[in-house]
Amino acid sequence: MLALDDKAQDLLFREAHTAVNFSDDPVSDEQIAEIWELIRWAPTSGNASPGRLLIVRSPQARERLVAHMGESNRAKTLAAPLTVVVAADTRFHELWPKISPSRAEGAARLEDDPDARERLAMLSGTLVTAYFLIGVRAAGLAAGPMGGFNRAGVDGEFFPDGRWRSILVVNVGVAADESPPERQGRLEFADVARVV
Amino acid sequence: MLALDDKAQDLLFREAHTAVNFSDDPVSDEQIAEIWELIRWAPTSGNASPGRLLIVRSPQARERLVAHMGESNRAKTLAAPLTVVVAADTRFHELWPKISPSRAEGAARLEDDPDARERLAMLSGTLVTAYFLIGVRAAGLAAGPMGGFNRAGVDGEFFPDGRWRSILVVNVGVAADESPPERQGRLEFADVARVV
Repeated sequence: MLALDDKAQDLLFREAHTAVNFSDDPVSDEQIAEIWELIRWAPTSGNASPGRLLIVRSPQARERLVAHMGESNRAKTLAAPLTVVVAADTRFHELWPKISPSRAEGAARLEDDPDARERLAMLSGTLVTAYFLIGVRAAGLAAGPMGGFNRAGVDGEFFPDGRWRSILVVNVGVAADESPPERQGRLEFADVARVV
Repeated sequence: MLALDDKAQDLLFREAHTAVNFSDDPVSDEQIAEIWELIRWAPTSGNASPGRLLIVRSPQARERLVAHMGESNRAKTLAAPLTVVVAADTRFHELWPKISPSRAEGAARLEDDPDARERLAMLSGTLVTAYFLIGVRAAGLAAGPMGGFNRAGVDGEFFPDGRWRSILVVNVGVAADESPPERQGRLEFADVARVV
């Protein structure tokens, strides 16, 4: 009954798996740019567009990153072809002139309300994080999202001006040629939905 | 270069628009269930699965909902074929036996750490909210997500036991047969990405 064809459903949702191990195929900045070109059209609150991508490529940067990650996430992050820290820009309104020249008034209001900016950045930045995970799969790649890291540590290491806030760390690559682990269960519609 | 075909890219991202006005076509619970059957496979933190859907269908429930919404969101919500409050269950671990019998120890640890549960529920629940918006589009429908509502008010009205927390209110339907408003701009890759 869905409008999306079966092959796309499989690619994005049903056959896609969170990956731990990847092949040796590299992932280029151009591939990440192409993912961005697609997902940037998905909605954020009032088109605020706070989502940001820190592409962690060099061995030195990876070491700096894993120093703030949980023990169980370190080896797989050092071994992944590429790692992206998806983040939210708490001063997203400064980039609005690039989106629309008519938003100066709204941007000025937000400038004076850092709490509202932070709430909006984290909520919509988390939506963008999910779009990124779907986008990685749309590119034929596998994602390994990880929440097990010290946010204050990662933010202090890579975003010392306090402007960007990390949301998830995501390993990206071609999934290793191995059987994925047995799929964990999911909740049924009756478990998650109420009708009023 | 993407593995996802152009038609699917258009359906989910490039041609899809946030909708304000909808046709008279109804949206059934079965359609929402089918969206859930697809999106439930997308990742949440450790498969925690905290995403929930409050399907607001009856006229009485809509009135209760819009009483807590911003003025600009009321009329369009009352007129939409269906409205879904996407929420996070802060006691998600109680449903883990339905997902996997082997998670009793992790569930017991979370039982004693309500702050960790709330953080995880809101982060992964927000990922599920984004998956839901993509899923609505996958069903050939249009979504009108709204953050402009009083969260404490909506939660007190519909989730008085304090267990579920609202994330976004989403109108759902077939987009009205009208030209969408001119597309707002989006940020370029160079605006959002840094490589280290």
